[in-house]
Amino acid sequence: MKNDCSYIGCKQDFIDAKEKVTGKAKYLDDMNFPGMLYAKILRSPHPHARILSIDVSKAEELPGVKAVITAKDCPANKFGMEIADVTMLAIDKVRYVGDEIAALAADSEEIAEEAIKLIDVKYELLNVVDDVEKAMLPESALVHENIKNNIVKEYHISRDNVDEDFSRCDYVFESEFSTHRVSGCYMEPFGAVAKWEENGRLTIWTGLQSLFQGRNEIAKALGIEPSRITVKSPFIGGGFGAKIWIRNFHPIVAVLAQKTNAPVKYVLTREEEMLTTRPRVAPKIKLKLGMMKDGTLVCKESKIIADNGAYSWAAPKVLLNMAMRTDCLYRFKSTRTDAYLVYTNLIPTSGFRGYGNSQMHFALESFIDTCCRRIGLDPVKVKLKNAVQRGDLTLHGWKIKSCGLTECIDKAYKYIQENRLPKEEQNGRIKRGIGIACMNHVSGNRGGTKFDGSSAMIRIHEDGKVFVFSGEADMGQGAKTVFAQIAAEVLGVDIADITVMPLDTDISPFGLGTYSSRVTTVGGKAVYLAAGKVKKQIMEYASKVLEKPEDKLIIKNGRIMFMEDENIGITLKKLCESGIRTRDAIPFTAYITYDPPTEGTDASFYGDYSSAYTYGAHGVEVEVDTMTGKVKVLRIVAAHDVGKIINKNGVLGQINGGVAQGIGWTLYENMVFQDGKPLSNGLKNYILMTIKDMPEIASVVVETNDPIGPFGAKGIGEPTLIPTAPAIANAIEDAIGIRIKDLPITSEKVFWAIKEKEEGGR
Amino acid sequence: MKNDCSYIGCKQDFIDAKEKVTGKAKYLDDMNFPGMLYAKILRSPHPHARILSIDVSKAEELPGVKAVITAKDCPANKFGMEIADVTMLAIDKVRYVGDEIAALAADSEEIAEEAIKLIDVKYELLNVVDDVEKAMLPESALVHENIKNNIVKEYHISRDNVDEDFSRCDYVFESEFSTHRVSGCYMEPFGAVAKWEENGRLTIWTGLQSLFQGRNEIAKALGIEPSRITVKSPFIGGGFGAKIWIRNFHPIVAVLAQKTNAPVKYVLTREEEMLTTRPRVAPKIKLKLGMMKDGTLVCKESKIIADNGAYSWAAPKVLLNMAMRTDCLYRFKSTRTDAYLVYTNLIPTSGFRGYGNSQMHFALESFIDTCCRRIGLDPVKVKLKNAVQRGDLTLHGWKIKSCGLTECIDKAYKYIQENRLPKEEQNGRIKRGIGIACMNHVSGNRGGTKFDGSSAMIRIHEDGKVFVFSGEADMGQGAKTVFAQIAAEVLGVDIADITVMPLDTDISPFGLGTYSSRVTTVGGKAVYLAAGKVKKQIMEYASKVLEKPEDKLIIKNGRIMFMEDENIGITLKKLCESGIRTRDAIPFTAYITYDPPTEGTDASFYGDYSSAYTYGAHGVEVEVDTMTGKVKVLRIVAAHDVGKIINKNGVLGQINGGVAQGIGWTLYENMVFQDGKPLSNGLKNYILMTIKDMPEIASVVVETNDPIGPFGAKGIGEPTLIPTAPAIANAIEDAIGIRIKDLPITSEKVFWAIKEKEEGGR
Repeated sequence: MKNDCSYIGCKQDFIDAKEKVTGKAKYLDDMNFPGMLYAKILRSPHPHARILSIDVSKAEELPGVKAVITAKDCPANKFGMEIADVTMLAIDKVRYVGDEIAALAADSEEIAEEAIKLIDVKYELLNVVDDVEKAMLPESALVHENIKNNIVKEYHISRDNVDEDFSRCDYVFESEFSTHRVSGCYMEPFGAVAKWEENGRLTIWTGLQSLFQGRNEIAKALGIEPSRITVKSPFIGGGFGAKIWIRNFHPIVAVLAQKTNAPVKYVLTREEEMLTTRPRVAPKIKLKLGMMKDGTLVCKESKIIADNGAYSWAAPKVLLNMAMRTDCLYRFKSTRTDAYLVYTNLIPTSGFRGYGNSQMHFALESFIDTCCRRIGLDPVKVKLKNAVQRGDLTLHGWKIKSCGLTECIDKAYKYIQENRLPKEEQNGRIKRGIGIACMNHVSGNRGGTKFDGSSAMIRIHEDGKVFVFSGEADMGQGAKTVFAQIAAEVLGVDIADITVMPLDTDISPFGLGTYSSRVTTVGGKAVYLAAGKVKKQIMEYASKVLEKPEDKLIIKNGRIMFMEDENIGITLKKLCESGIRTRDAIPFTAYITYDPPTEGTDASFYGDYSSAYTYGAHGVEVEVDTMTGKVKVLRIVAAHDVGKIINKNGVLGQINGGVAQGIGWTLYENMVFQDGKPLSNGLKNYILMTIKDMPEIASVVVETNDPIGPFGAKGIGEPTLIPTAPAIANAIEDAIGIRIKDLPITSEKVFWAIKEKEEGGR
Repeated sequence: MKNDCSYIGCKQDFIDAKEKVTGKAKYLDDMNFPGMLYAKILRSPHPHARILSIDVSKAEELPGVKAVITAKDCPANKFGMEIADVTMLAIDKVRYVGDEIAALAADSEEIAEEAIKLIDVKYELLNVVDDVEKAMLPESALVHENIKNNIVKEYHISRDNVDEDFSRCDYVFESEFSTHRVSGCYMEPFGAVAKWEENGRLTIWTGLQSLFQGRNEIAKALGIEPSRITVKSPFIGGGFGAKIWIRNFHPIVAVLAQKTNAPVKYVLTREEEMLTTRPRVAPKIKLKLGMMKDGTLVCKESKIIADNGAYSWAAPKVLLNMAMRTDCLYRFKSTRTDAYLVYTNLIPTSGFRGYGNSQMHFALESFIDTCCRRIGLDPVKVKLKNAVQRGDLTLHGWKIKSCGLTECIDKAYKYIQENRLPKEEQNGRIKRGIGIACMNHVSGNRGGTKFDGSSAMIRIHEDGKVFVFSGEADMGQGAKTVFAQIAAEVLGVDIADITVMPLDTDISPFGLGTYSSRVTTVGGKAVYLAAGKVKKQIMEYASKVLEKPEDKLIIKNGRIMFMEDENIGITLKKLCESGIRTRDAIPFTAYITYDPPTEGTDASFYGDYSSAYTYGAHGVEVEVDTMTGKVKVLRIVAAHDVGKIINKNGVLGQINGGVAQGIGWTLYENMVFQDGKPLSNGLKNYILMTIKDMPEIASVVVETNDPIGPFGAKGIGEPTLIPTAPAIANAIEDAIGIRIKDLPITSEKVFWAIKEKEEGGR
C-alpha cells in the first residue's frame, strides 16, 4: 500500500506550523473588535456557602463599567452535559471555590478587575463536603439539595456469573487504589468573545473542542434556539478534554454583550483556569481479581466511588468508561462493577485525556502486576496469555476488528529488557526496576445508539484549489493536517493546494467534536469519503474532456492522465478553469455524512460501540533513590497500535505528549485541597514536569490496518497517556518491592513506604 | 396552484426589512476593524494625458500616512471582463477624468485626503477622443495605442436575406437615434475593505453583484490565485449593474493592506462615484425598417456605434444585446446588424439595468411607432399583429416557452385609453398624448455554451431551523426574501424559520451573480431544487419515525403529518432534535448545482440562451407645455409578464423602481461632458427624479407560468425600465406631432423642436 501513497504515513509538517511559529496564528485573546468590552467574574472564595446578599452598586458606579450582572439578571436555565445542574451565575448558594457569583463588563481589563473588588457579597458558611465516602452518609451536607446522599449517578454492570467464577478460582486477590485531580494546563487559557449581530443572532468566538455541542449548551443556558447562535473557533492552544464542554463564562459573556450592546471578551487568567478548569475525575477503586495457577485471568469485581465535584459535566460518562473499558483488555470470563459518582464541594471534574479509562488502567494494570509477583508469575507472560485478539467478541460485546496488543507487549518488553541498566548502584541506595503496562481505548464512542459520525464537505475552486470543511476541532493535535493529507491522498493533489477551513457552526458540517480519540478515525473517514465523491465528479468530467473512459484515467500530482500514457492529460487546475464556466463541470463539491458501522449499546451498555479499538503497552525503567524516595523515570518505550500512520509527526507528537502528561500525572501534578479550598492556584504551586525531567522515549508504532478507519487508521490521542502511570508503579515495585496504590507517587510517599517496609510493616 | 401555496404570490415583507429600517443592517462603511486605515485615490484631472512624473515624497512625509503607492508599486497585470485593458493604477498615461494614478492609506480619512493633495504629478496633455465617429477616423488620437481606430469590438450579425426582403417591402424607413450616459446613483456608494489574514489569504468585504466573478478579477489584477481570496458581502445599497464587476479600488486596497499590514477601507465619495461609476453605454443607432401595407414587420437593419469610454468592462456584452435582442420582440423575417464599440476618453461604460437592450428598445420602439403614424397605421395594432407568441422559434434561435406580450399590450393600451385626459388645455398650450412601447428581455443569459446556472445549499439545524446558502447577491431587490419564500414553500415551514446566509466566496455555493434578471429564475430554481432534496431526506426519516410510507405523509407549517389524519405527526423541530443524535437523521443537508435546460449559442450567436424570456408593455400619458417644452408624465401603466409572482411586494417594487429610473433616464438624468471633462460631478448638478415628479403608476402583472422557472417565475429586475423611454417619446409625438430621437428629452430640446416645427422646418 505504502508505495502507492504520497502523503499517508509520511512525516508531514503541520500545515499551520508556519503561522504558529511565526506568531501569526490568531488565538482567542488576539481577537479584538471595535468597542469591545472586557469581562471579569466574581468567584466564590468559599467551598460551600449560602449567599445572603450581593451589593453591586459600588462596582456599577466605577467609571468605565458598562454592566454588572448577577443571577437575577440572567436566565435561570440549568445546563450541563448529561445532568443539568448548573446556572450561569450562582443562585442562593455557592458550591465550590471558584463558583461564579457576579460578572461585569468594562472598558478595560484593569477597570473590570478593579470593579470586581467593589462587589460586596455576604455569605453564610455551610458544612463542606470534601470526602466522597463521607458525602454518601445520611448526615452529610448536600451539595445539591435535591440529590440524596450526594450520589449523582450510579452504574451496576455485570457480565456472566462473577460469584460462581470467583468460587472456582485458584487465587482471589483484593486491593484498593485511588487517583487524584490533575489539571490540563494547556498552553492557552480558555475564553470567549460574544457579539450580538444586527439581525438578532449571537456570535461566540471560542476554542471549544466540540463546537456544536457547545452551541447547544449555550443555547440551553440562554434559553434560545441553537441555530440563533454561531460558534466560531480561532486557533486553539490545547484542551485535553477540559475544553470539550462550555464553561459558565460562555453564556455569561453573551448576557453581558446583550446588556451592553457591545462585543465582550473574557479570557481566564492562569489562576482562574486553575480554579475552574475541568480536572480528571478522582476515584477510589476497590478491585477483586480471580486467577488460575496458570495465569488465566478469570473474573474481576470493581467498586468505584468517584469524586464528581460541585457540578456534573462529563463525569457520569467518565465513570461509565472507568467502570467498563478495562474489562475488555483481557479475556475475562465475568466481571461486575458497582460505580458511584458523588457530589463534593470541590472543583467540578470532567473528561481528561483517557476519560476515566486511564484511572482504571492505573488500578487494574498495577493490580495484575502485583498479584502475579505475589504468586511468582511473570506479569508480562500473564498479560500475553490473556490479551484480547483480533476477531474476539469481548464480554461487553465489542467486536475486535484489529488488535496489536500482543505485538505491543512483545516489543515494549523486548526494548525495555534490552536497554535496562544494572538493578543497583551506590551500594544499594539507587535501585532500578522495569515495568510493563498495557492499554486499550476507543476511536469514537457511540453513546447508546446515538450518532457517532462526522460530516465533511469538500469543494474545489475554479483554480483547482481544494477547501476541506469539517466540524471537528484542531486543538493543536494536527487534525487539520491529517484531513489535508487524507484529501490530498484521495484526490491525488499537492497538499499545498488544500485549505482546511476554520470552524464555524453556521458552515462547518456537523461533527460531534474532538474527544474519544475520534477525529482521525471518524472525522478523517468523512473527509476520505467526501474526497472520494469529489474525485468521482472530477474523473467523470475529465473523462468527457479527455475522451477516455474514467477507469482508464488516473490522477496524480494534480494532473489527470491516461493510465497507459501519462503524457496525455490535463491538470486539475485547467480542468476546473474550463469547468467552472461550462455546463458539465459545476464547482466540484461533495457533502458527506458518515456514521461508523457499529451497532452501539443496549440498556445494559452491552454492544460494539467504537469504530476501532486501540491497544498499546508501555515499558518503563525507573530508578528510586531509597534515601529520599525520589523516583526518576530513566526511559520509556511506548508501543502503540495506531492501525495505520497518517502523519508520523502527529503520532510521535501524541506519544511524546501523552507520555509526558502521563509521567506528570503519576509523579508531579496534584491539585491539593484543604477543607475544600484549593491550595494549587497557579503554576507556581502546581508542579508540571519540565523538559529536564523528561526521560528518553522510544516510540514503537504497530500498524494493524484497521478495516474501518481511513487508510486503516485508528485514534492515538488519548492512548499514549493511559499505560504510563501503572508502568511506572510496576517498575517501582520491581525496583524496591513496594507497591504504591495511590497517585501521585511523590517522593514523600515513597520515602515513608520504604521506611514502613524497613520497619517490617509491609 | 395558489390554494396550495402559502408563500408564493403573497405580499411578503422583505425578511431583512426590520434590520434595514431600524438602521441595524451593516453596510460596507459601517464595518470597522482595529487598526484599520483609510485609503484615498489620486485621480486624473485630464481626459487624456501622458504622465511625465509623480512625486509622492511630500505625501509620504505627512504624519499618519502609512503607505503611498503608484503603478510601480503594484502588479502590472491587466484585468477587465472580456477585454483586459486596465491596470489598477495608470502606467504612463491617463485616459479619462477619474483615472487612478496613485493611492495611499492613512490613519484617518482627513489625513488621507490632505496627503492626496500633496502628490505632485506632471502631465503632457494629449488630444482628447470624445466623439465615437471621429474616434474611428485614421487621424484620431488612440486611447489605447494597440487598438486601431479605437474600435474595441465589432459584431456583424445577419439572419436570412435582408437585402432581398427590403426590396420587396411596401415601405422602407430609415432614421437615427441616440442615447446618453446616465449613472446608477444607487443609495450606497461603492467601496471595499481589504485585510490580509495571518495564513496569507486575502479577505475583501465589498458589495459586489457578482462575488465570484469579482474574486477572479481581483486575483487577476493581483496576480494571485482566486482561491487565496475570500470576498464577503455586507448589506448592499443597490447596484443596477455598476457593481457587477470590480473597480480599480478593489486591487488597490488589497495592495495598500499588504504594504501596511493593516485592514484598509476605501469608500467612494458621491463625487468620486460620479467620476468612476459604470454608466450606461451610449450608442448612436441607425435603423432601417421594412414593412408591408398591412403592418407586417418584415426586416430590420441596424448600425450601431457605441461609446465604450476609456476602458472596457461589460460594454462588449452590452453591445451584443443591443445588436440582437429586439430582433426577437416581433416576428421579423430577416435582420442585419453592424455594431461597433469605440474607445473614447470618457468615463468607462458598462452594464446598467437593461444592459444594452433598453437603448435599442428606445430606438426601435420609437421608430416603429413613428413609421406607423407616418403611413396611417395604429402602432398598437401593428405591434399586436407582429408580437412573438409562445411556441415561436425566433430568428436568433430563441425558444419561446412562455409569452405574455400580447396580453401586456392589450392591458396597457386598455388602461391608458380608459384613463386619458382631454388632448388639449389652456387654449392649446398644454397638449396631451398617449404612447405604448413593448419590451422583451431574458432571465439569465448563457454566454456561448458556458455555465448559466446557480448552486444552492440548504441545511437544517438541530432545532429544525433552515439555513439557505446561495451565491447570488441581494442588492436590495429582495433576493433573500424570494429564496426564503421558495425554501419555506417547498419545505412546508414557516418563513420565520429560514435564514438566508450572507455571501462569502469561501462558503456560498458558486453563483454567477446578480445580473441578466437571473436571480429569481436561476438562483431561485437552485434553491427550489435544494429544498426539494432536503425535503426528501426529511420525509424519508419521518417515514421511519412515524412508521408510514413517505407518500402517505405531508409537511405543512413545519409539521410532518399523516395525510389521512393530520392529528398524527411530528414537528420538524422534534424530528431534527431526535435526528441529530440518531444514526438515521444526519443533519439534513443538500447541495445542488442547477443549469437551465438551454443549449446556448453558436459562433454566430444563434441559439436559445435564456431560461425564460420576459415581456411587457408600458402605456404612458404625457402632457407637454408647448410654451416651455416641459414634458410631464401624467400616468404610466406597466404591464409585465413575470411568469409567476413569487413576492408581490418585490414585483411591485421592481415596477415602481424601474419606471422611476426609466423616466429619469428619459427626461432628467444626463452625464454632461465638455472637451472630455465631466460637468456632472455630484448630485447637485446631476438631476435625479424626485418623488414630486413621480407619476401615478398602474401595475399590471401577467402570469404565464413559465415551464422552467421556479413555480413558473421569470425575471423582473430589468424589464420594468426598458419600455419607459420609447413609451414617453411615443406619447410626446402623439401630443405634439414631434419625434424626439435623442435622449434625454429635455425641455430645451422639446422647446427648440417645437420652434423648428412652427417655423416649418420639420
